[in-house]
Amino acid sequence: MSLHPFDAAVCLSPSAGEPGLYTGASSPDYWNMVGPFGGTTAATAIQAVMQHPARLGEPIALTVNYASALQAGAFSVQATPVRTNRSTQHWTISLSQTDSAGMDSVAMTATVVTAVRRETWSVNDTPMPVVGPPDHAVRFSFPGGVEWIKRYDIRPLSGLIPNVWDGGGEDSLSLLWVRDYPARPLDFASLSAMSDIFFPRVWLRRATHVPVGTVSMTVHFHADSTQLAECGDGFLLGQARAQAFRNGFFDQTAQLWSEDGTLLVTTSQIVYYKE
Amino acid sequence: MSLHPFDAAVCLSPSAGEPGLYTGASSPDYWNMVGPFGGTTAATAIQAVMQHPARLGEPIALTVNYASALQAGAFSVQATPVRTNRSTQHWTISLSQTDSAGMDSVAMTATVVTAVRRETWSVNDTPMPVVGPPDHAVRFSFPGGVEWIKRYDIRPLSGLIPNVWDGGGEDSLSLLWVRDYPARPLDFASLSAMSDIFFPRVWLRRATHVPVGTVSMTVHFHADSTQLAECGDGFLLGQARAQAFRNGFFDQTAQLWSEDGTLLVTTSQIVYYKE
Repeated sequence: MSLHPFDAAVCLSPSAGEPGLYTGASSPDYWNMVGPFGGTTAATAIQAVMQHPARLGEPIALTVNYASALQAGAFSVQATPVRTNRSTQHWTISLSQTDSAGMDSVAMTATVVTAVRRETWSVNDTPMPVVGPPDHAVRFSFPGGVEWIKRYDIRPLSGLIPNVWDGGGEDSLSLLWVRDYPARPLDFASLSAMSDIFFPRVWLRRATHVPVGTVSMTVHFHADSTQLAECGDGFLLGQARAQAFRNGFFDQTAQLWSEDGTLLVTTSQIVYYKE
Repeated sequence: MSLHPFDAAVCLSPSAGEPGLYTGASSPDYWNMVGPFGGTTAATAIQAVMQHPARLGEPIALTVNYASALQAGAFSVQATPVRTNRSTQHWTISLSQTDSAGMDSVAMTATVVTAVRRETWSVNDTPMPVVGPPDHAVRFSFPGGVEWIKRYDIRPLSGLIPNVWDGGGEDSLSLLWVRDYPARPLDFASLSAMSDIFFPRVWLRRATHVPVGTVSMTVHFHADSTQLAECGDGFLLGQARAQAFRNGFFDQTAQLWSEDGTLLVTTSQIVYYKE
């Protein structure tokens, strides 16, 4: 049985005798324009924490900062539990690559909070929008597109990527169904990656194709591993919108629900854009 | 002329010969129930970056992780520029305190991204809600309340803290005017603190007073120092709501606009709650 491309992309090997130090490699299967898909980089940070033998609980918060585009090839990741409380644990993560001159440089920093969750009063205050089922939607096909987009089954419902780049955008809201392609059971790593699945809001809002790059993404997890397991390899409903575009940076907020309407993730990112 | 209490609270002294290492002290003026107001802790992270001689540009993103409640007394903060690009810079920040047994422990970690902004196409995609002016609203008075709340002029418009804790909450949305008390010209530090001004959404949504604590807060800045200076010491309009409450943690997203309708900050946090 061959490895799913996502598992290959986020595979980390522990370094003997150095707790929390892992080696991995950027994935050609998830290549974007000038580096790998930022979602897999976010997933790498989560993966380093999930594999750490000292981990307490499960992720509730992730912030990943994209310090530079990853190059093709190997990288190292260090995950450090800087504070362990009774039911929460605070992590710092750093990903480095060695350049052709032999210099190490930081390509990503992250912080993660893990926690032991206990059953409490709970309520979903953001009901899933009413939409048709994934079976009634059509997979987005982007001939000649970048690699990573082919690793997802994305079924747009509204707020499509513009067909005509005429500067006529009016809104930044998108709705879509998404899952891995081929399908793969959901876990914290893949959920982190899918938090970055939405194409840049500035393209939609302006119907203008400008250079962009995510600078920092934060993910708040509202589900535990049992609830993720219940999602199996089903579709998630994603919704994204921007709040402000100003002098080179815009924000992008999003939600991901399971098909049965459980809000799994709320996320926001700040994205560089040119012009 | 005496120092404004906020300036005293976020005052940091550089350590000779150790770039980016500062000492400060938690502020009694901004005391919360079991430690200082988290907003001043967030502001301390920004302040360490703003004072650093190697800083490039101005803050566009901040994530602050509250690893433990700060104690009364001194702390040290280390701000490190881990990657400097042509127009962006990535920072890691760590705040430590020495306990009574002489042990150093991490009480806060943060990451900040600073950037040089250039004028581009811009649009405010989240217009300010239509509300009456601050002059027509009444300052919130909370007799016997915690110290930090007295350092703000908060004028609630809707979604007040419940008068009757009867478990009857239906909504998590609040609107309010806010500025420092006494008034103080806005800067990145005070804007970071005000991002944490909203009382816990779980109290509003449930009309039940349960123990809470912010675990992690992310702030995305949509304004530069010139725009902040234009705000002077005027009021900001704040809006906050939650998206999900689940098994011990809920999120809280918020926006802050200048009185003239410029969206200055979008922010989200994840908060622990008991029961």
